[in-house]
Amino acid sequence: MFRSSSQHELNIYGEIQLFAGTSCPDLAAEISQYVHVPLSGRDIVLYPNENLWIKLHKSVRGQDVYVIQTCNKPVHRNLMELLILLQTLRLDSAGRVTAVIPYLCYARSDKKDKPRVPITARLVADMIEVAGADRYMTLDLHAGQIQGFFSIPGDVLTAFHLLTDYIKTKLPRMKDPVVVAADLGFAKKGRNFAVKIDAPIAFIEKRRTGADNHAEAVTVIGEVEGHDVIIVDDEIDTAGSVDQAVKLVKKLGAGDVYLVTVHPVFSPPAPQRLAAMQIKELVVTNTIPIAPEVCKMLEGKMTVLSVAPLLGEVILRAHQGVSVGQMFDE
Amino acid sequence: MFRSSSQHELNIYGEIQLFAGTSCPDLAAEISQYVHVPLSGRDIVLYPNENLWIKLHKSVRGQDVYVIQTCNKPVHRNLMELLILLQTLRLDSAGRVTAVIPYLCYARSDKKDKPRVPITARLVADMIEVAGADRYMTLDLHAGQIQGFFSIPGDVLTAFHLLTDYIKTKLPRMKDPVVVAADLGFAKKGRNFAVKIDAPIAFIEKRRTGADNHAEAVTVIGEVEGHDVIIVDDEIDTAGSVDQAVKLVKKLGAGDVYLVTVHPVFSPPAPQRLAAMQIKELVVTNTIPIAPEVCKMLEGKMTVLSVAPLLGEVILRAHQGVSVGQMFDE
Amino acid sequence: MFRSSSQHELNIYGEIQLFAGTSCPDLAAEISQYVHVPLSGRDIVLYPNENLWIKLHKSVRGQDVYVIQTCNKPVHRNLMELLILLQTLRLDSAGRVTAVIPYLCYARSDKKDKPRVPITARLVADMIEVAGADRYMTLDLHAGQIQGFFSIPGDVLTAFHLLTDYIKTKLPRMKDPVVVAADLGFAKKGRNFAVKIDAPIAFIEKRRTGADNHAEAVTVIGEVEGHDVIIVDDEIDTAGSVDQAVKLVKKLGAGDVYLVTVHPVFSPPAPQRLAAMQIKELVVTNTIPIAPEVCKMLEGKMTVLSVAPLLGEVILRAHQGVSVGQMFDE
Amino acid sequence: MFRSSSQHELNIYGEIQLFAGTSCPDLAAEISQYVHVPLSGRDIVLYPNENLWIKLHKSVRGQDVYVIQTCNKPVHRNLMELLILLQTLRLDSAGRVTAVIPYLCYARSDKKDKPRVPITARLVADMIEVAGADRYMTLDLHAGQIQGFFSIPGDVLTAFHLLTDYIKTKLPRMKDPVVVAADLGFAKKGRNFAVKIDAPIAFIEKRRTGADNHAEAVTVIGEVEGHDVIIVDDEIDTAGSVDQAVKLVKKLGAGDVYLVTVHPVFSPPAPQRLAAMQIKELVVTNTIPIAPEVCKMLEGKMTVLSVAPLLGEVILRAHQGVSVGQMFDE
Amino acid sequence: MFRSSSQHELNIYGEIQLFAGTSCPDLAAEISQYVHVPLSGRDIVLYPNENLWIKLHKSVRGQDVYVIQTCNKPVHRNLMELLILLQTLRLDSAGRVTAVIPYLCYARSDKKDKPRVPITARLVADMIEVAGADRYMTLDLHAGQIQGFFSIPGDVLTAFHLLTDYIKTKLPRMKDPVVVAADLGFAKKGRNFAVKIDAPIAFIEKRRTGADNHAEAVTVIGEVEGHDVIIVDDEIDTAGSVDQAVKLVKKLGAGDVYLVTVHPVFSPPAPQRLAAMQIKELVVTNTIPIAPEVCKMLEGKMTVLSVAPLLGEVILRAHQGVSVGQMFDE
Amino acid sequence: MFRSSSQHELNIYGEIQLFAGTSCPDLAAEISQYVHVPLSGRDIVLYPNENLWIKLHKSVRGQDVYVIQTCNKPVHRNLMELLILLQTLRLDSAGRVTAVIPYLCYARSDKKDKPRVPITARLVADMIEVAGADRYMTLDLHAGQIQGFFSIPGDVLTAFHLLTDYIKTKLPRMKDPVVVAADLGFAKKGRNFAVKIDAPIAFIEKRRTGADNHAEAVTVIGEVEGHDVIIVDDEIDTAGSVDQAVKLVKKLGAGDVYLVTVHPVFSPPAPQRLAAMQIKELVVTNTIPIAPEVCKMLEGKMTVLSVAPLLGEVILRAHQGVSVGQMFDE
Repeated sequence: MFRSSSQHELNIYGEIQLFAGTSCPDLAAEISQYVHVPLSGRDIVLYPNENLWIKLHKSVRGQDVYVIQTCNKPVHRNLMELLILLQTLRLDSAGRVTAVIPYLCYARSDKKDKPRVPITARLVADMIEVAGADRYMTLDLHAGQIQGFFSIPGDVLTAFHLLTDYIKTKLPRMKDPVVVAADLGFAKKGRNFAVKIDAPIAFIEKRRTGADNHAEAVTVIGEVEGHDVIIVDDEIDTAGSVDQAVKLVKKLGAGDVYLVTVHPVFSPPAPQRLAAMQIKELVVTNTIPIAPEVCKMLEGKMTVLSVAPLLGEVILRAHQGVSVGQMFDE
Repeated sequence: MFRSSSQHELNIYGEIQLFAGTSCPDLAAEISQYVHVPLSGRDIVLYPNENLWIKLHKSVRGQDVYVIQTCNKPVHRNLMELLILLQTLRLDSAGRVTAVIPYLCYARSDKKDKPRVPITARLVADMIEVAGADRYMTLDLHAGQIQGFFSIPGDVLTAFHLLTDYIKTKLPRMKDPVVVAADLGFAKKGRNFAVKIDAPIAFIEKRRTGADNHAEAVTVIGEVEGHDVIIVDDEIDTAGSVDQAVKLVKKLGAGDVYLVTVHPVFSPPAPQRLAAMQIKELVVTNTIPIAPEVCKMLEGKMTVLSVAPLLGEVILRAHQGVSVGQMFDE
Repeated sequence: MFRSSSQHELNIYGEIQLFAGTSCPDLAAEISQYVHVPLSGRDIVLYPNENLWIKLHKSVRGQDVYVIQTCNKPVHRNLMELLILLQTLRLDSAGRVTAVIPYLCYARSDKKDKPRVPITARLVADMIEVAGADRYMTLDLHAGQIQGFFSIPGDVLTAFHLLTDYIKTKLPRMKDPVVVAADLGFAKKGRNFAVKIDAPIAFIEKRRTGADNHAEAVTVIGEVEGHDVIIVDDEIDTAGSVDQAVKLVKKLGAGDVYLVTVHPVFSPPAPQRLAAMQIKELVVTNTIPIAPEVCKMLEGKMTVLSVAPLLGEVILRAHQGVSVGQMFDE
Repeated sequence: MFRSSSQHELNIYGEIQLFAGTSCPDLAAEISQYVHVPLSGRDIVLYPNENLWIKLHKSVRGQDVYVIQTCNKPVHRNLMELLILLQTLRLDSAGRVTAVIPYLCYARSDKKDKPRVPITARLVADMIEVAGADRYMTLDLHAGQIQGFFSIPGDVLTAFHLLTDYIKTKLPRMKDPVVVAADLGFAKKGRNFAVKIDAPIAFIEKRRTGADNHAEAVTVIGEVEGHDVIIVDDEIDTAGSVDQAVKLVKKLGAGDVYLVTVHPVFSPPAPQRLAAMQIKELVVTNTIPIAPEVCKMLEGKMTVLSVAPLLGEVILRAHQGVSVGQMFDE
Repeated sequence: MFRSSSQHELNIYGEIQLFAGTSCPDLAAEISQYVHVPLSGRDIVLYPNENLWIKLHKSVRGQDVYVIQTCNKPVHRNLMELLILLQTLRLDSAGRVTAVIPYLCYARSDKKDKPRVPITARLVADMIEVAGADRYMTLDLHAGQIQGFFSIPGDVLTAFHLLTDYIKTKLPRMKDPVVVAADLGFAKKGRNFAVKIDAPIAFIEKRRTGADNHAEAVTVIGEVEGHDVIIVDDEIDTAGSVDQAVKLVKKLGAGDVYLVTVHPVFSPPAPQRLAAMQIKELVVTNTIPIAPEVCKMLEGKMTVLSVAPLLGEVILRAHQGVSVGQMFDE
Repeated sequence: MFRSSSQHELNIYGEIQLFAGTSCPDLAAEISQYVHVPLSGRDIVLYPNENLWIKLHKSVRGQDVYVIQTCNKPVHRNLMELLILLQTLRLDSAGRVTAVIPYLCYARSDKKDKPRVPITARLVADMIEVAGADRYMTLDLHAGQIQGFFSIPGDVLTAFHLLTDYIKTKLPRMKDPVVVAADLGFAKKGRNFAVKIDAPIAFIEKRRTGADNHAEAVTVIGEVEGHDVIIVDDEIDTAGSVDQAVKLVKKLGAGDVYLVTVHPVFSPPAPQRLAAMQIKELVVTNTIPIAPEVCKMLEGKMTVLSVAPLLGEVILRAHQGVSVGQMFDE
């Protein structure tokens, strides 16, 4: 779909080299195919004492290295694997090291909305920098402001193009589709999604009510009755909120319901909830690998779009020093 | 209203000292009164070549210093004045320096939503740190995530308590009040406002339409007809958006309209627009001083609530090393 | 045993506060008792997506805070818990934050003895600093040089006093005791142990031999025949090396064998190996908690000495600003 | 005049790119012509709230970028424009960013000659570094030591060659020319100027006198009677000192008076003073643009020498990695 | 003479502690007496391999430590001794560490007046910071701008008060005294000296002349004939320049010649030159110890004023957190 | 012996350039010959005041520069020379600067084995980084962990290959050779040496004994009687320990004794001791130049192996960006 860029060639950052941690081997392999560069060899050993040890098979001196590692579960091990890889590459005098992190963990811990809590996303950014990354790439951060947590440059890309392009192919068969943002924090991005497919937008609002705030009132602001509904969010974690949302719009008379999201975090009991949910289709990307047993549970219901061409193309362009601008969500 | 804390006393950070730049003398004086500490003397000279020069009247060695300077217009001069003050205090071996910035400039430049643009809010945070601040205080950042742009600790406070407390006194006379968020980016905070006063919420949505995106469609999502409306936002800049919002809700049959915001930026032509607007009341705070002629234009229509007790109290607590937690928007 | 220091009192670092992660609750409780300061309240939540979230119950502004967290298994979660705690405390404007890490993970990854490998211990030191520690405390690092990986000051203590003091009580019943260093990298520290109890020293040497280096020759350099043997090392991981050592000295005619170490890492299959080992006694400390089922397996054979008085005393002295010198292994 | 260097070509820093802020468009255009590289497109917008916003038209990934921005009036806006440009270029992954600042503001605030004053020149250096410059270039700093305020490398060039070369062409028509340093802080550089044109040197000395130091005694040390006089200084700000100097040397019997300086700061009332001054010629450079109305006031009296070839040549050499040494004031 | 400040007492920086390197034991002892605090014990060992080793006798945890070390010959050893002391104190968790450096080495290497040379004074400042100093104190830097090389705060004091106070006692016996600046770089400070004693000023100028710049022309600008002359400079190194100056003013008919300087560097052949020089009196301070044999050579001719009360007083004030402002050269 | 790498060529780090300080001119010349690049010209001046001054003869803009300087005696001057060279190169905008330090001083001060002592090796690493090195190279650090003191990448090479290769040529004439580690801290590396030449290992142990620890008992652990003995250590300083060791193994009936070490520090009275020692041969490298008079004293007894090909080859490979892995001690 992109593929405008020419062959990679020797350049000011040295040769391109791709390394992958253990967190998303399939996505890494797809990226490697797109870029036409094999994954470089490395040993990653987990000792009985749970300490990781890494050894690169070949020197990376003066090379332009990309480390592909998503930060899904096991979160802390995957993060540490990334950090140790970054340090090893830096200490081996790599020319430039780019951390390619399809899904960045802790992105929801991005501010102190209460006193005496952490801003863990900033901590993670600091760790990535101190380990030795010169640049980073990631997809659809929970809040775009997290870019400002890094002092190194980065490419924060969006996969919403993939999702809207896919949904557009479904529109002819939908009835008066309306986009529903599952969370008010996603209101603006949900609106952008709606604009892309030229549909109206509605919102889910939740409030604690009752004597002790123990009850919860969930309402829809905007029209869903008689509409096919496309519920959008940036990630699906336990699927609790979207489960509520689906039930509510159905109760209010919605037609078919589509569930669209970038990051399939799928923490328990998300698989069970999704399997039981009254939805026509669940559309996600492969920023996080989905366990085979979950794929089986959701067979026929879930569509997984690949971000490999997007990431591969940006790696090529970053290497060649050309713009990735048109790939942003302008 | 707060005033729970006892007298300030000699403590591990030395004596408390207050300095003010030239940007908000009245607010600084009010804070000084609250804290029972006079503003420390300093010369601030603007030379004919527009270079600023500062001299402190007394030593601040080992003292616990607070510099009050808001970043309204002239923005760059006020920012530079703040930075030079911070450096001067650091070089004079102050024990701890806290930048108290009621309104932080450039807070809307908080992410790269396009390629090849700055994240100026991060730059401003870096400048404040490199100049020598050990801590910072500010009020109602455009995005809470800006906290993560600083690596020094800070207190990001909210004045929304002041605003909701004030609006609550008006509620008995309102008819079915509904809160309207003037911008979808403010949806979540607007909802929080609505929860505080136990009112429903609605949203303004704008879309470019037509052949060349030259037309703009503005709609309300949610109910306003027959309701008194409280339009909320974090700041009023040129007042263009709220002007549209007021006209639209009026057209849709709203009753009285209240306009509520923390930061009265009031860039031209905001004063004219606000003066002409069909609103019952405009409620703001004094994080930014309002020019006397503007006050006159809006006489009888505008209420200004003071953040001085809030800032003064937090300064006292920060000095004494006690919690400011209950003053956050938990 | 130490307890020379007086009551803690208000001082230049503020009040003492103790926080504990979830890794070593019993040791933290013992330290708290020694110091006469209760553990401060904090919520530590592990969300379904495996992200940690922390909230302090009370403000730590201007306080002298000690965070007790050992880095045993689950290593990466425990490490992240420590780092998030450190950042939270820093962002809450603690006066001084000391990371108390009885067992530091990744200490064996302390140099590049091959090309293209990490120095993970340096990475861990960098992470602790970037998270916000002002100081650190730890016990018996694998290599003392790791102190130089930190740019913050720290107290690297030793628990070998506890071990030699304990062994001295056994000496009257031993026959010509000889100390055996289980690894040549531990030769110098093993010698120091031997000097403390006034016994000779011998060493275990291993070499790869045969056609493909597949066989291994293990020898003892020095005399063990007819001696009771005290095998010493800094930690027991899988217990493979000490298992070999015990078998070898027994084969060479040693009498009773004691196994003495600071850190009971006890990775599988250490418990089984230790249970089956021909040793008179296993002496360890509680820098790492030992699972109850392992305690049961080793009942009657294992003695656990507590480092809580040592750590508690150093915390008190660090707080009061007095020397901990006499507690080092001078 | 220089032009020894060959064509620019692809090199280790990528392609050369020139950006200009809004402060000195004519000089930037001249440099662009010299270097044979067009100025790169960028939008610089000043919003009604006085916040600046910048967008680069094309990607600068891996390019060798030079940002031309002088720091004349409006000083703080121009400085901020420079800083935001630097950050934008860094975040867009430029290969190397060089700040080209013909006139650096705040250079006279270079030390604490009193207690409790800033060293603003150091603050400005820190801001330029934190914004993202890898190198800087500037001309005739008030004190050469300001180079040491930067930790990045830089080229601090001198335009005195241009001035002495020009004056040499006038010497045949001068009568016993003597150089006069307008300020004792300029004594050494004034001497160097005198050596270059093989003339003697004299100095202006000012002292506060009288009861309250309210009177000022101005004297000349050295001979001026019967000589044509060349008054030199590094910049002319309000022209107060040189006005005094001209009057004094005239009173003491000097012949023609030339006024020679690098930086035409020309703060009010400099234009009026210069227009009224008894001087034969005023010689300056274009490090700072002179307003058209001032040019008109000084028509026939003022000569402006261009530093564009000097800056252009150094940009070319810096890009090619060859020496700029012979262009310094050795 | 100062002694305005009260007794030192327990304060926010802990107890005052004084350490001295080996470079200026007498000055350190005098300071210790002034401050009424004994020098703290430390071992400084120079091993046969010329490596230094240091051990503090007592803990400095949380103390307010001052390290007195001047950087005279052996320059590099003395500098390293200072740096190791600073690191040792930092690693022992001192509360605050101030480097007290009466004479800072390499201060003349303060800018690149040629290409491809170092700015060693900046390097020295960086080394002092990286070793662990929180603050520094020094006297009469060659260029005041060197303050800007440090990012830590410092007190740059002047001993010129001592020198002018002393010279004032001699004035009644002098005939029409005139101050002569031995170097044009000292012109401004020389003028300040002259103002303090209410005398006129003259300057020495040197130029290379002749075919190959091999000859040197030395002239006096200003009047010296029939005047007693006070030659001033910040330091006397080999005494070559002042030797020339004395001979010249004598040849031009000067009366008595006084030589006044802060730092007696006295590199060879300064002692011989000074002993042979036609001067009435040489006035210096003890920022650098003078070898006993040199004292003997200059007996009856040289007056050494002590900076100990000045440094001692500033240490006391810095400790107590009160102003040292009136001790600067305002 | 290595020489596998091809010709150096223009690459991403610019042209290779070699600079040498004054500490090891012969070794630098040998490296220059190996690399086929002449040493670049520079002036290094030691002024009468012992301040160093450096000037590079040509520009190094964008070049790949290697600075060869060993840190033998005079240690502090040599270290400072290295640091000033590094800063000068950085300020001249070198593309990459690598410090090549055959012998790193202060490597034995690598940890706090007592309280209140420095970790000077970390200070030295910090100084090298702050001066401007991008990378470093060195040989056989006292402790490999010192690599972790640097945050820049480096190549820590070993010359033990040279020594074991040389000893292997002697083995046929030796009788039952045994390797003896002169110090228990060298036990592991001594073992590695023994493995390389397929010989057994023994150890020297020293203990303080007697009433006041005034006596010293030196013993051998392992067999030496009837064996030719190869005593190994990383450096020979005063030769006191090896003198004891030689005497002891001789007393115990050893045959010929060889003394093998990398770094010939040779502090007094090492030359006298070595000259008098009962050894067959002393084998060292030229990481430190040996004074001609010492060479004469040890004539016929000492073999000096050159590390120039090793360092030259690694410089070439680092420049070309290829692996130096097989040159490590894997």
